Amino acid sequence: MRSEFDLIRRYFIHPAPHTRLSVGDDCALMAPSPGLELAVSTDVLVAERHFFGDTDPYRLGRKSAAVNLSDMAAMGAVPRWATLGITLSEQQGEPWVDAFARGFHDELQSFGTDWVGGDTTAGPLAVIAVTILGEVPPGLALRRSGARPGDEVWVSGTPGDAALGLRHLKESLPMTAEDRRHCLDRLETPSPRVALGLALRSIAHAAIDVSDGLLADLGHLLDASGVGAVLELSLIPRSPAMLRQQGLRGWETLVLAGGDDYELCFTAPPQAAPDIQAAAARAGVTVARIGAVTGGRERVLYDPAGRPMDVAWLGFDHFRKA
Amino acid sequence: MRSEFDLIRRYFIHPAPHTRLSVGDDCALMAPSPGLELAVSTDVLVAERHFFGDTDPYRLGRKSAAVNLSDMAAMGAVPRWATLGITLSEQQGEPWVDAFARGFHDELQSFGTDWVGGDTTAGPLAVIAVTILGEVPPGLALRRSGARPGDEVWVSGTPGDAALGLRHLKESLPMTAEDRRHCLDRLETPSPRVALGLALRSIAHAAIDVSDGLLADLGHLLDASGVGAVLELSLIPRSPAMLRQQGLRGWETLVLAGGDDYELCFTAPPQAAPDIQAAAARAGVTVARIGAVTGGRERVLYDPAGRPMDVAWLGFDHFRKA
Repeated sequence: MRSEFDLIRRYFIHPAPHTRLSVGDDCALMAPSPGLELAVSTDVLVAERHFFGDTDPYRLGRKSAAVNLSDMAAMGAVPRWATLGITLSEQQGEPWVDAFARGFHDELQSFGTDWVGGDTTAGPLAVIAVTILGEVPPGLALRRSGARPGDEVWVSGTPGDAALGLRHLKESLPMTAEDRRHCLDRLETPSPRVALGLALRSIAHAAIDVSDGLLADLGHLLDASGVGAVLELSLIPRSPAMLRQQGLRGWETLVLAGGDDYELCFTAPPQAAPDIQAAAARAGVTVARIGAVTGGRERVLYDPAGRPMDVAWLGFDHFRKA
Repeated sequence: MRSEFDLIRRYFIHPAPHTRLSVGDDCALMAPSPGLELAVSTDVLVAERHFFGDTDPYRLGRKSAAVNLSDMAAMGAVPRWATLGITLSEQQGEPWVDAFARGFHDELQSFGTDWVGGDTTAGPLAVIAVTILGEVPPGLALRRSGARPGDEVWVSGTPGDAALGLRHLKESLPMTAEDRRHCLDRLETPSPRVALGLALRSIAHAAIDVSDGLLADLGHLLDASGVGAVLELSLIPRSPAMLRQQGLRGWETLVLAGGDDYELCFTAPPQAAPDIQAAAARAGVTVARIGAVTGGRERVLYDPAGRPMDVAWLGFDHFRKA
């Protein structure tokens, strides 16, 4: 493979119109917008753990950007700049690097986000570390800690589809071509809900993005807010692909704990419902009320017959599954 | 090992006085200083490539922060905030994580830099990805591209000591206890030249930090500036430890291409020399003139007899050495 410097020069330098000095110096230089807060998030993806080594590199590049853009969405921040640190093994040749870089750049660019720098190094394993920076007016960021008793709990999209796609890949689960395409798109090229996050500023009390699984991430939000919640399984929206797996043992686990959804889970007072529906319509996303925040510590999920289900409120914890 | 969330709660949360919202939400939130530019840099360290797996974890934590602080130094930026992404294998138990986190935090804290967030994940290998953010007044950043013909070339400290320490570890090179301690300190706990970088703003024309090797990094600076340079080996300062290895075959390579120095290499007009010496004295660092910038493309290094040496201007290129 070419040297690190040649690789960076060839594949990692793209126009960065919102950046004063981009890739190629010791640091990138940017001018933050006056009066705004800076939001920063870092995510690490590891081969064979967060993605298959043979995943299409263009789609992997897009997803590497998307999971970070999703953190901006959950905060109600405008994504502005991103850096990429990546270790590449000999298995990843130049065509792989080229396709990955194009995917990473395309996904960022579709959100007006500049790719401003990073680091490339050889290693026995592909590790992808992305840091994303965004901006938000002071006091308007959607924190995890703002949920209040009486709030309703909402979720965007149809959780579980990415996990259904993963199960299809791992277990050759039978699926129509259309459902397969839908689920693999959700798994490999999730859509960060940036527009929804921005639209929910000053409407939602608290928000988180669903990466570890709906119940796990809602659990983090409830922990941070010091509240409980009561949910109804029948209210959690399912895609046509998921509905066609009605007979699949464990479909509930895919919906509740599958992870990799990159949807938003948020809470808001009941009177905000019309504003939320309008915000979601503007953002081009479906949203659904799935339960309510309570003042206690209880976390109850009712099945369609009205019985509390026995669920762990933990989802995909990287260490626990190790 | 504990779950990811427990690990983060226990070891990765520290006071972050310059940060509005630190570890524990989807993003950290900071208030940039009005009117300043933001400087951002990302570095990835890989086990068995950039550090030995059995390196003392506290010192490794310090170095992981230091190499990033060094990028701030090279830019003349004040380091403000940092994030850490890390993959941990089962080999790294909790005492390791605890010591690493303390080292990372201590090094940042000694420069007034807040540790604001990150990501922890299990993986078959320790990969450490740090992103650092700093601030600099508009137009004052020390870029690589500002060197002009007639400038003098300067370097801080005594390059090669870290590489000498590494060679000692790898080849059991004989060394006094004092020299060994000095060289291993330079290798394992380099001192980012942040104060020097700040003092050189509006004095130096161009700067870079020496991570890949003196000639390689000076080469990047010359490339970015479109100029050449003439250096004299006898002007490059050597530590007592290095001078005591006068008979060692290849000591010149350690000095010129050893890497891991985290010194600053910079250029400035000759009349700036007194200001540079004063700035270095204030920063508590030694600096030395090692050559001059030329208008052509030539890159010549003279040996003590005045003969041009045959040197590759490339140092430690992660891929080329793979």
